[in-house]
Amino acid sequence: MLVNIHQVTVEWGHCDPAGIVYFPNYFTYFDSSTNALFLRALGYNKFEMLKRFGIVGIPLVDVGARFIVPSTFGDIVTIESTVAEVRRSSFRMAHRLLRGDVLAVEGTETRVWVGRDPDHPDKLKGMPIPADVIAKLSG
Amino acid sequence: MLVNIHQVTVEWGHCDPAGIVYFPNYFTYFDSSTNALFLRALGYNKFEMLKRFGIVGIPLVDVGARFIVPSTFGDIVTIESTVAEVRRSSFRMAHRLLRGDVLAVEGTETRVWVGRDPDHPDKLKGMPIPADVIAKLSG
Amino acid sequence: MLVNIHQVTVEWGHCDPAGIVYFPNYFTYFDSSTNALFLRALGYNKFEMLKRFGIVGIPLVDVGARFIVPSTFGDIVTIESTVAEVRRSSFRMAHRLLRGDVLAVEGTETRVWVGRDPDHPDKLKGMPIPADVIAKLSG
Amino acid sequence: MLVNIHQVTVEWGHCDPAGIVYFPNYFTYFDSSTNALFLRALGYNKFEMLKRFGIVGIPLVDVGARFIVPSTFGDIVTIESTVAEVRRSSFRMAHRLLRGDVLAVEGTETRVWVGRDPDHPDKLKGMPIPADVIAKLSG
Repeated sequence: MLVNIHQVTVEWGHCDPAGIVYFPNYFTYFDSSTNALFLRALGYNKFEMLKRFGIVGIPLVDVGARFIVPSTFGDIVTIESTVAEVRRSSFRMAHRLLRGDVLAVEGTETRVWVGRDPDHPDKLKGMPIPADVIAKLSG
Repeated sequence: MLVNIHQVTVEWGHCDPAGIVYFPNYFTYFDSSTNALFLRALGYNKFEMLKRFGIVGIPLVDVGARFIVPSTFGDIVTIESTVAEVRRSSFRMAHRLLRGDVLAVEGTETRVWVGRDPDHPDKLKGMPIPADVIAKLSG
Repeated sequence: MLVNIHQVTVEWGHCDPAGIVYFPNYFTYFDSSTNALFLRALGYNKFEMLKRFGIVGIPLVDVGARFIVPSTFGDIVTIESTVAEVRRSSFRMAHRLLRGDVLAVEGTETRVWVGRDPDHPDKLKGMPIPADVIAKLSG
Repeated sequence: MLVNIHQVTVEWGHCDPAGIVYFPNYFTYFDSSTNALFLRALGYNKFEMLKRFGIVGIPLVDVGARFIVPSTFGDIVTIESTVAEVRRSSFRMAHRLLRGDVLAVEGTETRVWVGRDPDHPDKLKGMPIPADVIAKLSG
């Protein structure tokens, strides 16, 4: 199974007046880590990936996270991400954020492979994930 | 049970290249809505609340959300928030984000009432939620 | 001259570990205030405005700000915005952010009315601002 | 003169519905780059720096930027930052953001070395920048 390691420096602007990471920013870290995994698996950055496959994005349908240990600005944290499951037009990511050796945050995301709905161009619609992509994600 | 209604205008800068709300921003909406509920229940804004009770914040220990219908810039969405459960030093919030009449996102947060750890001022420590606060949250 | 008044609650997540608004967030306030002015002047929210006029956005070419007095979470600040100048395909906004009666931040933005470049759809290109829009912005 | 080179991957969540970096995020890039320069010059990350020197932060009093060429998600941009001037309790940063070889954004920041005001602990107050820090920034 493909595991991608992604490092993030916790910036001053990611932290709140308590001096710790403002929790929605952990989801931006996970999002970056998901994109980094795709870059590694497919060889395309997200811009190229969307063009290549004619999709609009890989938006989430659900997300969950546990915040175990806080991090603060100046910390360099490591995110281990894996594709936990791939279905027809959706997939599930699992992320573990480590502060040093300590598991600090863990989370899961379910995402959908979406394009424009041909009948309603303002709307998004799930599309089948190409077999080649599935193969590469399954690593 | 106390239910607070909080309106948010979805701004251009909250949305991603797919033209829809970038998902971590829903958590900032929920966070604002939690703070708005405390303001209404206690009569203090967050700055005053932290001072009054000698706490550093109400950080999350877990969070979950389902994204059902996307929203876009210019939308005015409504968030209904309630305190679903109060324990000794933690509590659980439930949020429903409506786009018009449609349930667009729902989420829950578990938060802890924390102060500085007297033995390690760099660390945070759960503290008992004052009885008066519990009474007002149970509304 | 059209002056729009826009109120913003400074949220916990807008503030940094010093307990004051993290400065890039002032630009998100100004951006929201610009959009609110257009909504008032034209009667369209930004989504409708882009569709109606076939543009992709009104991105900035330059910006400047002075930060005079800090604000903190719980503060409700007021932004007074005006269109200071309109040219063929660009315009300049001026913003004054007040904390109570005190001028706390002031800034200016030069923005361009842009569409997709017909010859290079990946690129943006300045377009003439419609006369009707100019008339309404000049208020 | 000390020049620090800082690379940033433009993330999906940094971009707006026009598909380009939402302009306030350039200021977060500049802020990270300022912090990276201090880490390199002083050997302390920001958390350690604040502790070591007993300050609360280095907030801005003014900022300006020109946006010349847009960037999009997947781009890896380079920020060249220098300390353009150091005064008694303030200093000026100059940043140049390059997309490939092209100057895409340039900006300047004036920042103040601040601590808590001993007479009003809720307020911030400029403090003299230590001679050792000045020497290292002048690099």
